[in-house]
Amino acid sequence: MKHHSLKLDLGDYLPYLVNRVGTIIADQFSAEALAEHGLSIAMWRVMAVLASSGGQRQIDLADRTSIDASTLSRLVSRLVRMGLATRVRSASSNREVAVTLSAKGNALVARLIPIARQFETDAIGGLPPGDLMVLKRCLRRMYGNMQKRLVAAAASRPKRLAG
Amino acid sequence: MKHHSLKLDLGDYLPYLVNRVGTIIADQFSAEALAEHGLSIAMWRVMAVLASSGGQRQIDLADRTSIDASTLSRLVSRLVRMGLATRVRSASSNREVAVTLSAKGNALVARLIPIARQFETDAIGGLPPGDLMVLKRCLRRMYGNMQKRLVAAAASRPKRLAG
Repeated sequence: MKHHSLKLDLGDYLPYLVNRVGTIIADQFSAEALAEHGLSIAMWRVMAVLASSGGQRQIDLADRTSIDASTLSRLVSRLVRMGLATRVRSASSNREVAVTLSAKGNALVARLIPIARQFETDAIGGLPPGDLMVLKRCLRRMYGNMQKRLVAAAASRPKRLAG
Repeated sequence: MKHHSLKLDLGDYLPYLVNRVGTIIADQFSAEALAEHGLSIAMWRVMAVLASSGGQRQIDLADRTSIDASTLSRLVSRLVRMGLATRVRSASSNREVAVTLSAKGNALVARLIPIARQFETDAIGGLPPGDLMVLKRCLRRMYGNMQKRLVAAAASRPKRLAG
């Protein structure tokens, strides 16, 4: 019955519980590790993916960072201006552009990764490994559910320009 | 060994896994339910807490929404200008101001709560109840860990103005 009342207990509402954890970690990591280098969380994500998966097309980067294409394009331009990344012709196709880290970008990521790992360690302190497995499984499933929801919503939306 | 390499697999890094779930839910809820009313996620949180816990001081609101005091003050002012909330003298102390929802604010929250519940239901689709219990326990613990970390960092920081 409680569940159908007109009240919503934020302290037991999962979207809130998830969001506040994501925000408190990102805020502290940003303030303590990224701000001094002029980086945002999104820029850091791009650099981490480039460091671990190597140079790649922006469409693949967008997929791996959950950043939309137009935002990503702006972020990459900023990284290029800062000398942390470069845009190069793709090896597979002359018309495609790939993004890669510069030596300076690689050096910065190498300094930031141990700090990022420490943040994860601090955040999960006291949680047994079994719980962490369940946590990851839940988070991946929730992300997949929300992606499917978006696709379903787009498919059912009336096409304004059609007919 | 993998864990100590200079690479970071974002797809297995908990701060990222948490953050992208928080963001995808907030973005969709914001676009589909809040934008038409001129509300942000933070404003919605304030309204949800006021609806479920009743009129209260800004300091208590800040605590229950995880929004810092100065940001909260601006958000409340916007809600007041929109006719959704009012600032009233506290019953307990004449010098204190409490925030409360207006009739219009209550009516709007009553329309949004079922939509918010549907988002939570969509997000957790397919997850067994036992996993959800572990998920909530992990998220509360992680938030607590990060809060403690912040307090510890503040305590160990050299006091620049002292001495």
